[in-house]
Amino acid sequence: MLKFFFGPQSCALASHIALEEAGADYEAVRLDLKAGDQRKPDYLKVNPKGRVPALVTDRGVLTENPAILAFIAQTHPEKKLAPLDDAYAFGRIQAFNAYLCATVHVAHAHKLRGYRWADEQSSFDDMKRKVPETVAACFELIENELLEGPWVAGAGFSIADPYLFTLSSWLEGDGVDPKRFPKVLDHRNRMAERPAVQKVLPLHS
Amino acid sequence: MLKFFFGPQSCALASHIALEEAGADYEAVRLDLKAGDQRKPDYLKVNPKGRVPALVTDRGVLTENPAILAFIAQTHPEKKLAPLDDAYAFGRIQAFNAYLCATVHVAHAHKLRGYRWADEQSSFDDMKRKVPETVAACFELIENELLEGPWVAGAGFSIADPYLFTLSSWLEGDGVDPKRFPKVLDHRNRMAERPAVQKVLPLHS
Repeated sequence: MLKFFFGPQSCALASHIALEEAGADYEAVRLDLKAGDQRKPDYLKVNPKGRVPALVTDRGVLTENPAILAFIAQTHPEKKLAPLDDAYAFGRIQAFNAYLCATVHVAHAHKLRGYRWADEQSSFDDMKRKVPETVAACFELIENELLEGPWVAGAGFSIADPYLFTLSSWLEGDGVDPKRFPKVLDHRNRMAERPAVQKVLPLHS
Repeated sequence: MLKFFFGPQSCALASHIALEEAGADYEAVRLDLKAGDQRKPDYLKVNPKGRVPALVTDRGVLTENPAILAFIAQTHPEKKLAPLDDAYAFGRIQAFNAYLCATVHVAHAHKLRGYRWADEQSSFDDMKRKVPETVAACFELIENELLEGPWVAGAGFSIADPYLFTLSSWLEGDGVDPKRFPKVLDHRNRMAERPAVQKVLPLHS
């Protein structure tokens, strides 16, 4: 059985939803991120990065949402969570997930995690002020160029959808009005109705 | 035929090496990033992100190194650039590439691209000062936990190797002595001897 480590209000929500969508056989373990569970020795043995998500398999541990999401799709092919036999279509979904991981999440992280990249309070304040602008620019690109609709990759639900849902749920907190992005907002509303999301979301609050 | 857009001294080197390793049929187009080619209308039609790399296929465009690398491996299965029939082993490589993309490259980018996340010169200076520390922390993790050796994923060369080579070649510029990381340095030296690297690297200077 898989063991999935997550923390509340973290990007681990994406992989958690995907596990549910896949009907995976897994146990979920919630870390108290505010208490620093993710930096305790027991967890660092699981994931030396000290971050969530982490998925423990019978072979070893996988980290990073894009990797975990693709793994879930590949190990549950009957659920058709990614176009596994079409390298280009799979690549489009992977490119979307890489953008969320390396650009959108990173833009968001400058609101509360400026200490990762700087030392001065004035820098943290500066970074925080810019978050509404940088996050909005990311979602402008998603709205106008990347989100094919109704789902990220077009007609079919995929592993990109829970990931977009997770990051778009941070918009208000980042000082961005989601009404600026009608396709993203519509996507978020449809995601919120899915049984997998309704089951998992309360565990993340 | 594939068309590959890259710029000198950019992370596009990773996908470029992989195209050579795969023996792919492709044309490489070099953008002058200092002249802003990547933000000109013709290129924004290819990649609205205004970044490199971008790989134009007969189906459409792929961006983001992790996605392009997996696509190259999947479309050239005979080259065995990734364990395509083993979701866990593939996931480990994907996790490594996601870490390079979202954490290591991002740490490095704070040296010269602080304007992406802040507005004040004092913040840019602060970020720049911290880069040797943050980049070294990333390579500490790679050296001690992630790089299985001799190649990233162990005995077999994979799409993770050109990506690590690309980012580890930035160490000196980021103020980090690569001798601190003997496995990474040995990996870099072995990569530099590969014909694919010797062919592609001069185009990136």
